[in-house]
Amino acid sequence: MAQTQHDTPLIPISESKRFISECLQAVGAPKKHADDMGDLLVAADYRGHFSHGMNRLEMYVNDITSGTCDAKVEPKILKETVATAWVDGQNGLGAVVGNFCIAVAIKKAKEVGIGLVTAKHSNHFGINSMYTLQAVKQGLLGMAFTNTSPFVTATRSKKIEIARRKGVPIPQGWAQDKDGRATTDTKTAMTQGSCLMPLGGIELHSGYKGYGLAFLVEIFSAILSGATYGPNIRPWMTTDRIADLGHGFIAINPQCFASDFESRLSDLMNVIRNSEPADPSKPVLVPGDSEKLHMAAIDKAGGIRYLPNQMETCKKLSEQLKVKPLTGS
Amino acid sequence: MAQTQHDTPLIPISESKRFISECLQAVGAPKKHADDMGDLLVAADYRGHFSHGMNRLEMYVNDITSGTCDAKVEPKILKETVATAWVDGQNGLGAVVGNFCIAVAIKKAKEVGIGLVTAKHSNHFGINSMYTLQAVKQGLLGMAFTNTSPFVTATRSKKIEIARRKGVPIPQGWAQDKDGRATTDTKTAMTQGSCLMPLGGIELHSGYKGYGLAFLVEIFSAILSGATYGPNIRPWMTTDRIADLGHGFIAINPQCFASDFESRLSDLMNVIRNSEPADPSKPVLVPGDSEKLHMAAIDKAGGIRYLPNQMETCKKLSEQLKVKPLTGS
Repeated sequence: MAQTQHDTPLIPISESKRFISECLQAVGAPKKHADDMGDLLVAADYRGHFSHGMNRLEMYVNDITSGTCDAKVEPKILKETVATAWVDGQNGLGAVVGNFCIAVAIKKAKEVGIGLVTAKHSNHFGINSMYTLQAVKQGLLGMAFTNTSPFVTATRSKKIEIARRKGVPIPQGWAQDKDGRATTDTKTAMTQGSCLMPLGGIELHSGYKGYGLAFLVEIFSAILSGATYGPNIRPWMTTDRIADLGHGFIAINPQCFASDFESRLSDLMNVIRNSEPADPSKPVLVPGDSEKLHMAAIDKAGGIRYLPNQMETCKKLSEQLKVKPLTGS
Repeated sequence: MAQTQHDTPLIPISESKRFISECLQAVGAPKKHADDMGDLLVAADYRGHFSHGMNRLEMYVNDITSGTCDAKVEPKILKETVATAWVDGQNGLGAVVGNFCIAVAIKKAKEVGIGLVTAKHSNHFGINSMYTLQAVKQGLLGMAFTNTSPFVTATRSKKIEIARRKGVPIPQGWAQDKDGRATTDTKTAMTQGSCLMPLGGIELHSGYKGYGLAFLVEIFSAILSGATYGPNIRPWMTTDRIADLGHGFIAINPQCFASDFESRLSDLMNVIRNSEPADPSKPVLVPGDSEKLHMAAIDKAGGIRYLPNQMETCKKLSEQLKVKPLTGS
């Protein structure tokens, strides 16, 4: 999803972070929390997941200004063992809740090999890798789960929103309308009553496995934590009530198992990377490789070029919130 | 995958278990271990997962007679914390290793909220639900992971083998031949060099997510435990070397999080079951529902009717191992 072909200014990473933080501070977020959100959103853009980057800023601003998200609060632990914790996000910012929870999970994993932390009363927490990579940096495995509004699955939704920003249709098979008919129109796909097919698609192609996975994510996010779940969650982009999203975080210490974890994992990744591609122009990748390529391209370019539609949204935000416009070269 | 339309005898559950246990005892398994394997395989047939039931018996017999699986040994713990354990399966029977590991995970989950157990030096452990349901019976959540021979993914393989037993083709999109071309022929799909597409299929339909999931399973099964992994595992059905499969087991105690876990989970399942089906003849199910329907049908019929090809295999096994034939009415 490279976005470097547009006739828009090149925005340095630091400038994107500055803009996001100042917008959130303008609506009442403390600087530390606003900076956390800036780190979260720009990490998404940097890694190539533009749906979860600057694209989310207006939604987060709306959550705060509507009063359905409290940008000032800190999460708190309600119950814990040496290996688990149950957290009340107190309806705070998603990145604030997420950073708190993964830190607790990491501490427990270091002490007893595994840490499982679930949170209720949270808000949209952005890209999962923001949290899992914090575990990885400590030599641990990290996993993160979240639920979201019932309109879409978290993973598929992004593509449709980016297609909407671009004004192009989506491929057949991604979404269905309220009567169960496939649609390629982004507006129809984002209309109430429409929904996305689970990973795998139809039953014959094992779509029920993707559906089962969605169940698993809902259990780790909301059924354990006591957050709102499934169809009870407020519709996407609405702010008539709190989101009360749920998250789950797992950190695992490989040193509690066989030695040389990292060398085995590297070997497996390299074996797969070196396998012969079906299309020679598309090398075989492992999870994280496409993000590394994207980050290298951003580094080389010296910044990010956002879509014209996104720049327009940022201009409106800067006017509305009286924040210095997002500026590049 | 109902198999009740065949002109084969109706085999009571107890008779299937007797036959499996006696076959495995005939090749040297202690009665307790042979009974465990009988419980495992018949549980699969009972739940409708025929690929992982009686269908597997000849492979398990071959594993033992070739000397690549030691039916007599017990697993042992190599390293543990209050929340984790690393187990050496000592190359024993899959069900013996699996039952041992999930019992350890359950004990830890009851004590500290979560238990993660990984095992190396194991063999094919059958249906995952054999282990996860042991956790569920104790009021816990259960998860089980295993790797397998690189020829197939564990979940997709069963359908192809049952199609092979029936002598019918598989749908387009399940498998590809050694040159990356789709195939509907079961023999081609099971030939060395062929492989199955990950959940999701092609890249546009998010097949990379199914591929990422396969990575996750490999990490929980073999990279943590130090078992053989990925393409290094012996090809399917071969016995020239030990399988050295890896497994992972997680048990979680919901009481360490929000109260009323079970009522929330039941509510979510019922909301989904009561949603309007796209095809009125196919009600919306939740995970486990199709198995419950199948078990009720078997109970009503008073036993299982195996495919003619399967009955023929059992007849050969009874002659070869001098075991009383599988007998029904």
